[in-house]
Amino acid sequence: MENIGIIYGKNSILEILRSKKRNINRIILSKNCGKDAKTEEIISLAKENKIVFQFLPKEKFLKYKDCNHQGVIAFVSPVEYVEFKDFIKKPSKNQYKRVIILDGTEDPHNLGSIIRTAVCAGFDAVILPERRASLCSAVVEKTSAGAVNHIDIIKVNSLLNVVEALKKSDFWVIAAEADGRNNYFEIDYTSMNFALIMGAEHAGISKTLIKKADFLVKIPMFNEFNSLNVSNAASILMYEAVKQIMQKSNLTV
Amino acid sequence: MENIGIIYGKNSILEILRSKKRNINRIILSKNCGKDAKTEEIISLAKENKIVFQFLPKEKFLKYKDCNHQGVIAFVSPVEYVEFKDFIKKPSKNQYKRVIILDGTEDPHNLGSIIRTAVCAGFDAVILPERRASLCSAVVEKTSAGAVNHIDIIKVNSLLNVVEALKKSDFWVIAAEADGRNNYFEIDYTSMNFALIMGAEHAGISKTLIKKADFLVKIPMFNEFNSLNVSNAASILMYEAVKQIMQKSNLTV
Repeated sequence: MENIGIIYGKNSILEILRSKKRNINRIILSKNCGKDAKTEEIISLAKENKIVFQFLPKEKFLKYKDCNHQGVIAFVSPVEYVEFKDFIKKPSKNQYKRVIILDGTEDPHNLGSIIRTAVCAGFDAVILPERRASLCSAVVEKTSAGAVNHIDIIKVNSLLNVVEALKKSDFWVIAAEADGRNNYFEIDYTSMNFALIMGAEHAGISKTLIKKADFLVKIPMFNEFNSLNVSNAASILMYEAVKQIMQKSNLTV
Repeated sequence: MENIGIIYGKNSILEILRSKKRNINRIILSKNCGKDAKTEEIISLAKENKIVFQFLPKEKFLKYKDCNHQGVIAFVSPVEYVEFKDFIKKPSKNQYKRVIILDGTEDPHNLGSIIRTAVCAGFDAVILPERRASLCSAVVEKTSAGAVNHIDIIKVNSLLNVVEALKKSDFWVIAAEADGRNNYFEIDYTSMNFALIMGAEHAGISKTLIKKADFLVKIPMFNEFNSLNVSNAASILMYEAVKQIMQKSNLTV
């Protein structure tokens, strides 16, 4: 269904090379792309992993002019989505599993940067609905700075079914809602598997999912102006969990 | 120096109309822009404030096709920047003043969404360097969803001078740095005026500013993958302060 994708930008390509999770068909570099440390590392990793790379004149990059490619483009296998049923069986690298569910986040920049924060915050997975949502396009890969290769990305037909399955597997469900009952920092995130649901940029979380939530949490606002960007809101919530977990276990990272 | 700017998108224009902080020269609406609640409110606020508005055929919007204008464009006076010397004399609406300083954030989407979080988190001001940084373009206004009208935006020649002036005015300076000494949540934000400095997307904070900081804070990472988007990092830090302040004063918002 999905064909070879292109990944552009030095950071994204380095991440893919380092993660070794994806098949890279070949890499093209502009003769003008500069000889900085990142480019050197790309070339050395490509050699090490026997990946074809070519230096091409900058004219060959004209058709990619809408991408901020920095003179480096990789042709790679598509993001490998993880099956929910496989994810649920796997052990977590953490004491408890934590996942984020995006109910219809449409903007690929937001999706990319949420995936990035989820990786930094040590989440186990990002769950997306198959339809409606912005899937892992090249923009998402670029915005996520390659984070898509460090976390399980799960695409599902029905978020409702998945939320029900999570609850049966001993997950607590936390939904972020402007009218939430609790401030987000009033929940104890340290002693449970949990799924955090974030809504779409304008519509919020669908009512059927809200009904399944064990906690509805809000982010308090100091102004009438009540509208955080969804990736910022997601980051605030994910890092509250990180902080509590670290403080509880005296973890140092 | 700056001429009349254009603001596009229904939310941004509504915010500007509601804030009454900016002179709106006129508003144009596409005949195809739809009669939803937001459009109705735009029209009714325009009437109330005697602002000229016109319905134009969609062809007239072709030259704005690169903007996601949703069929509504306003021609407005530019963002009114606040002078640092005026800001420092003003009383805060909070017990202590809190400001965020952006040392060279280049991406207008990031700048816009940082301003948005700063408003939600009740910060007093956003301070930007005059050169190098992405200033308040139409993209920033759009991404900030109109937040630029709810907070003091201060543009300065030298961030170093401003940081020194802030320190003389009883501000503590907190710089976000990947190699920071403390985790961001180990600082007590509740009993001081503070300035939070965020760095540029790639280069981080300039060394001269780092040297002036009273605290260097880091956001802990659960993965080798060490790179949060700057607007997400800023949001995590700003909301840690909000949370501490609310918890200390039993504030409910």
